[in-house]
Amino acid sequence: GEDAAAETEQAGEEASVFKEIKVTKENKVYSILLNRPAKKNAITWLMYNEIVEALDQASKDDSVTVAVITGAGDYYCSGNDLGNFMNIDPKDMPKMARDGRELLRRFVTAFIDFPKPLIGAINGPAVGVSVTVLGLFDAVFATDKATFHTPFTELGQSAEGCSSYIFPKLMGNTKANEMLLFNKKLTAHEACERGLVTEVFPQDVFQKEVQTRVEYVAQLPPQSVQEGKKLVRDQERQQLHSANEKECEVLEGRWLSEECVRAIMSFFSKKARL
Amino acid sequence: GEDAAAETEQAGEEASVFKEIKVTKENKVYSILLNRPAKKNAITWLMYNEIVEALDQASKDDSVTVAVITGAGDYYCSGNDLGNFMNIDPKDMPKMARDGRELLRRFVTAFIDFPKPLIGAINGPAVGVSVTVLGLFDAVFATDKATFHTPFTELGQSAEGCSSYIFPKLMGNTKANEMLLFNKKLTAHEACERGLVTEVFPQDVFQKEVQTRVEYVAQLPPQSVQEGKKLVRDQERQQLHSANEKECEVLEGRWLSEECVRAIMSFFSKKARL
Amino acid sequence: GEDAAAETEQAGEEASVFKEIKVTKENKVYSILLNRPAKKNAITWLMYNEIVEALDQASKDDSVTVAVITGAGDYYCSGNDLGNFMNIDPKDMPKMARDGRELLRRFVTAFIDFPKPLIGAINGPAVGVSVTVLGLFDAVFATDKATFHTPFTELGQSAEGCSSYIFPKLMGNTKANEMLLFNKKLTAHEACERGLVTEVFPQDVFQKEVQTRVEYVAQLPPQSVQEGKKLVRDQERQQLHSANEKECEVLEGRWLSEECVRAIMSFFSKKARL
Repeated sequence: GEDAAAETEQAGEEASVFKEIKVTKENKVYSILLNRPAKKNAITWLMYNEIVEALDQASKDDSVTVAVITGAGDYYCSGNDLGNFMNIDPKDMPKMARDGRELLRRFVTAFIDFPKPLIGAINGPAVGVSVTVLGLFDAVFATDKATFHTPFTELGQSAEGCSSYIFPKLMGNTKANEMLLFNKKLTAHEACERGLVTEVFPQDVFQKEVQTRVEYVAQLPPQSVQEGKKLVRDQERQQLHSANEKECEVLEGRWLSEECVRAIMSFFSKKARL
Repeated sequence: GEDAAAETEQAGEEASVFKEIKVTKENKVYSILLNRPAKKNAITWLMYNEIVEALDQASKDDSVTVAVITGAGDYYCSGNDLGNFMNIDPKDMPKMARDGRELLRRFVTAFIDFPKPLIGAINGPAVGVSVTVLGLFDAVFATDKATFHTPFTELGQSAEGCSSYIFPKLMGNTKANEMLLFNKKLTAHEACERGLVTEVFPQDVFQKEVQTRVEYVAQLPPQSVQEGKKLVRDQERQQLHSANEKECEVLEGRWLSEECVRAIMSFFSKKARL
Repeated sequence: GEDAAAETEQAGEEASVFKEIKVTKENKVYSILLNRPAKKNAITWLMYNEIVEALDQASKDDSVTVAVITGAGDYYCSGNDLGNFMNIDPKDMPKMARDGRELLRRFVTAFIDFPKPLIGAINGPAVGVSVTVLGLFDAVFATDKATFHTPFTELGQSAEGCSSYIFPKLMGNTKANEMLLFNKKLTAHEACERGLVTEVFPQDVFQKEVQTRVEYVAQLPPQSVQEGKKLVRDQERQQLHSANEKECEVLEGRWLSEECVRAIMSFFSKKARL
């Protein structure tokens, strides 16, 4: 709407016209709305690029002290849009996999290196890469309607978003494997117990509670907060980058594997039958 | 029984005749039963070797997608058989300690490097090294009758199984010390809260619930699962090997220490008085 | 009183006359009482030095098997005494910050390298550095009246005590940030769920329950316990020292920053108005 357009303009000359996300800036808070509600905010190649660009804007804008990501509609995000893999000529598969690997690497890097507090407002179900990168957020608030699901092995794929490093550190190997290898879908409360989520709120007060917390963070002494975040992140920045590289490399191989191709075809043929 | 023998044969020519474990193979699942129920499945030098060999078989058998370890009878495993230390001529103690160190190192290495999903089905109390290596499993299911106890310092010994690295990572120093230094025995639910156990089931549904989960894992795309496990394990494989080396080195010293010799003598004299 | 004096003498010729802590030794237990109850045991430059010296005594005294730290009165410790920053001539600020950095580094080092079990008996609210160093203790027992608060960014400061390394490892980034960046005050039970505290006891049985546990630890085979602690600590001793160095360096910069100076002035002017 017009309001959104006006808010975007506040971001100054760096503001781009985004197509699949909506960006607003207000009172030091830079908000990124994943904005494909009809597709459960599934992430297309374009949306990956737009998120990277938005994070870059938020990072460089001195009037911004905190960034927030949330989803439009009932879903937070259904993960990587499997349409990214459709209608690819078999002879173009290797190039698609190579490009996808590089794009994913850049996407996750943007989260590793984002220098300001990054808050996730998980307004509904979250799937795949939209779950794994949460380990790189500084705070994650979830409605009690949210779920967290990373069914990589069911699709013949493998984990990304630094989750192969962060999830075992966060919840231990057995609980991390339950998610990353054995595809357990967590409730918001389970995700909170495991440290992936900071706090869970009932749906009807979710927006209000998140806003209170975002406003609190926005007014803290920004240098103090950023140096504090940097202290923590620097302890493992190298491991995070190297986990990201390795995960993307393995995933490129997975995308070209028979297991993965067969699983994705099966996914689409089931969908077509519905 | 005959069935078990037939199943073992399925494992093909690599199958050995094991004496203190029983191995079966069925529907891609390789099962290892710790089989000294009269001794609460305490691990003798022979049993260490047999487990290493069984894991090696499961690893190399392409028809196997998952391995499971459980115990015969009411106990899962009472840990290292202290009989391993009995009737040693004092002059042979250094050799016993050296050999024990090397065997333990090989035993734990087999768990660190096992490439397929490894599931623990903890059917009753677990003690000592049978608890510590659980940190190297990919999933651990426990009956609510299970307990987890590592009374190393009461026996003048020290932690192994990479627990000096994994337990603090899993549950933090204070909770890890409670187990590894201060000998607290955990219930199954406590072990689950700390991330050592994936899920706890009531005794009467335990076998069935475990079977459901094992079957689910067995039919997942195997390369996807193994590459996913490798991604996680590779992040810390070096630290695990080096923790294992160091722990075994310290333990060799402990076995020759006056504190340990006195504690073990006291253990046997108490037992003899019962 | 006289008893305390007598007990202190037991510590032998190394015993110093401490002014802001009180040290007692009894049955292998070396106890350090933070002893400025009128100031909620806030840590002055002198008290930092005295704690370092006391830990050194406890470390070298062969008759000591365990050390305990607790607070006099209703508070455990209100953290760094902000009076440390008062009445400093602006031209002396850089020297104050440099000296403070070095003292803090030495203080935290004494905790990293303390070779015997170190137990915290948290008798009431704990603030700031008195919370962060708990991650270096081997067991932490808290009364249910205790709280845990590290409002660094509200004061324009940043985390110390190796918490930038330990807290994320202990409770994951999101929960660690909640404390270290976003200033959430934890109850004792919350601190226990996050692994910062080993066990929580009702106020009326707190002393007795702690004593039971301290006595148990005191009589364990001391070499076994110390080698067990060393195994765990050695896995991350280097990271701890380097986290400590880095944190103190950042904090020196913070103390000289406008954000911090303004926040501390504001703290004192509010206090003056009360």
